[in-house]
Amino acid sequence: MPSKTTTSASVSGATSSRARGVPKPVAKFRMRITAGDVIAIGPGKIALLEAIVETGSITAAAKSLDMSYRRAWLLLDELNRALRKPAVDSAKGGQHGGGSAITDTGRQLIDLYRRVESTAARACQADLRRLIGLIAR
Amino acid sequence: MPSKTTTSASVSGATSSRARGVPKPVAKFRMRITAGDVIAIGPGKIALLEAIVETGSITAAAKSLDMSYRRAWLLLDELNRALRKPAVDSAKGGQHGGGSAITDTGRQLIDLYRRVESTAARACQADLRRLIGLIAR
Repeated sequence: MPSKTTTSASVSGATSSRARGVPKPVAKFRMRITAGDVIAIGPGKIALLEAIVETGSITAAAKSLDMSYRRAWLLLDELNRALRKPAVDSAKGGQHGGGSAITDTGRQLIDLYRRVESTAARACQADLRRLIGLIAR
Repeated sequence: MPSKTTTSASVSGATSSRARGVPKPVAKFRMRITAGDVIAIGPGKIALLEAIVETGSITAAAKSLDMSYRRAWLLLDELNRALRKPAVDSAKGGQHGGGSAITDTGRQLIDLYRRVESTAARACQADLRRLIGLIAR
């Protein structure tokens, strides 16, 4: 997952006067949309879509996430089946080479998902700081 | 986890004119506070605290969550160590019997955590409905 999106969806403890080497507590949201037992949309699938945007192919995306091609293909197939319209064009064909294109639905999915994470973190900022304040330093 | 809290932190798809037997997509938030590699606060520990409030003991709470006593005790020990003040009184002693009491910190932790989940779901309601709208019915 790109660090910028992780940051936008996180609330960290205060950085002032912290001893070096003590890990700073960080709050992270993970959102999943489930339909019955199936996770239709979740952080793994979104990270995979983003990696396809960045690398231009399923093969390279899978590699960048330290995931097998087979695992990536199965995730995309499951995602495409869950959606009204596919998120990745070549996923159904299962080509190993390049040419995997994120669709408009795929881009919309990434944007909405990341916006939800950052909206959630922003809306809960005060309570997240209270929670982090309960943690020992 | 009590169903009431799950509901308050969820956004479901429209219920009108849905075919019976088709699972309705539901959006769920999970929030974790990490410090380094350790998950200081997460959904499992909060569900365990709530079960202790409901059942009055670690043993009964573990049983109600289909968890071993040892696993419950380790989670509570990890949680207490992560906090400024313990969330459960008897966790450090490790008594198997009754007398496990949630502290003020423990209650504060549950309340803040569940409020964060419901605030997040409410703040993101429109985008969550858009995301659910992308899912096939």
